[in-house]
Amino acid sequence: MTQNIYDNDEFFAGYSRLPRSVEGLEGAPEWPALQALLPDLRGRRVLDLGCGFGWFCRWARERGAVHVEGIDVSDKMLARARATTADATILYVRADLEGLALRVASFDVVYSSLALHYIVDLERLLAEVCQTLVPGGSLVFSVEHPIMTAPALPGWSADGAGRKVWPISGYLDEGPRSTDWLTKGVVKQHRTLATYVNLLLRLGFALRHVVEWGPSAQQILARPQLADEHERPPFLLLAARR
Amino acid sequence: MTQNIYDNDEFFAGYSRLPRSVEGLEGAPEWPALQALLPDLRGRRVLDLGCGFGWFCRWARERGAVHVEGIDVSDKMLARARATTADATILYVRADLEGLALRVASFDVVYSSLALHYIVDLERLLAEVCQTLVPGGSLVFSVEHPIMTAPALPGWSADGAGRKVWPISGYLDEGPRSTDWLTKGVVKQHRTLATYVNLLLRLGFALRHVVEWGPSAQQILARPQLADEHERPPFLLLAARR
Repeated sequence: MTQNIYDNDEFFAGYSRLPRSVEGLEGAPEWPALQALLPDLRGRRVLDLGCGFGWFCRWARERGAVHVEGIDVSDKMLARARATTADATILYVRADLEGLALRVASFDVVYSSLALHYIVDLERLLAEVCQTLVPGGSLVFSVEHPIMTAPALPGWSADGAGRKVWPISGYLDEGPRSTDWLTKGVVKQHRTLATYVNLLLRLGFALRHVVEWGPSAQQILARPQLADEHERPPFLLLAARR
Repeated sequence: MTQNIYDNDEFFAGYSRLPRSVEGLEGAPEWPALQALLPDLRGRRVLDLGCGFGWFCRWARERGAVHVEGIDVSDKMLARARATTADATILYVRADLEGLALRVASFDVVYSSLALHYIVDLERLLAEVCQTLVPGGSLVFSVEHPIMTAPALPGWSADGAGRKVWPISGYLDEGPRSTDWLTKGVVKQHRTLATYVNLLLRLGFALRHVVEWGPSAQQILARPQLADEHERPPFLLLAARR
């Protein structure tokens, strides 16, 4: 089973204070790029893997999705999702994405934001996603960028000229990385960018677009602390079609 | 016009001493991975962009390609290619890949090894490649990995634990990088991995496979100095179908 870090009290408290938890989708700087990868949701059946507080599920319904399901392993997150969702047609389901079984040909769009880098058996989960999508259906997801997850000791450093640099090591060593973020010992799975793409291709997905996300000049003006993220992309966004 | 660094005396002398120049394809550690991306060449028309000394052109003919053309901008390299090629059916053409025009639907396979990171207008060249390939034709190429080309001052460093690290900066700043390799001021074009992939998708190619190349355990045993390349991939290999 994947580590259920979101139900850790310290992690949950810290996570709840992040802009993306307080402000929702608009608090996530990569959201405009992720949104741009989504098809028109009107009349679509939409599944969110790792739905958290339900921000995306509610947005999908507002955009005209006819059926929306959100799956998450965290009781704490689902409790808040349910408490803040007035729309009774959104279905929140508690399940571990590791070992998840999904109904055949039941969704038009599968979405996931910053959840899949926790999954150990990603090929198994993506195979489930593939068969739960209708032919022509869309998969859109984000993960931490492999440049972020590669180092055993991630963090900024400075080069000889004093410029901020992000030291990489172990990029080709795929597997778990334990880091301290909001609490101690958060375990993520490092995979190369090639592995993410080749998994999709092997399952028969057609790749549509890749985004190595960094802040726009406008975003840096509005939030100067985002400037570092331009030196190395923090997020990888992928769009594929079944 | 792209910098013609291969006709620089110092660069050419240094390049001529590299294992890949002396031993040919087998001297390049990424060759087995690149070869694995190629279709069966028997009966195919094959184009090599940046053919250098002609090693691949001769190999393609030996593998049964019926027509082989190699294009390069370097007079020195083409002179040696011609001098070491007995097979009169291989056509070597001197041309700058920047601004190249290719005949419509004339090739089954287009190949390029470590040449396209010198090209300023890559979209224009890949559009030419797309239209010179027959439908279903294959494009297989390698470039320096974006992790390699990103830093303004590329080179190894060490982290706090003494582990070798490759510091990244400027990953999202695409454009020229001037580095000293074999001679001073070698200019390469840095592009993100996403840009390489999205260029292909935008032109209508279907992506087949991505390799972020690093040495195998067996290769490291045979050549221990390759071990560092496992920390961050030196080469990016892409296979696509028109």
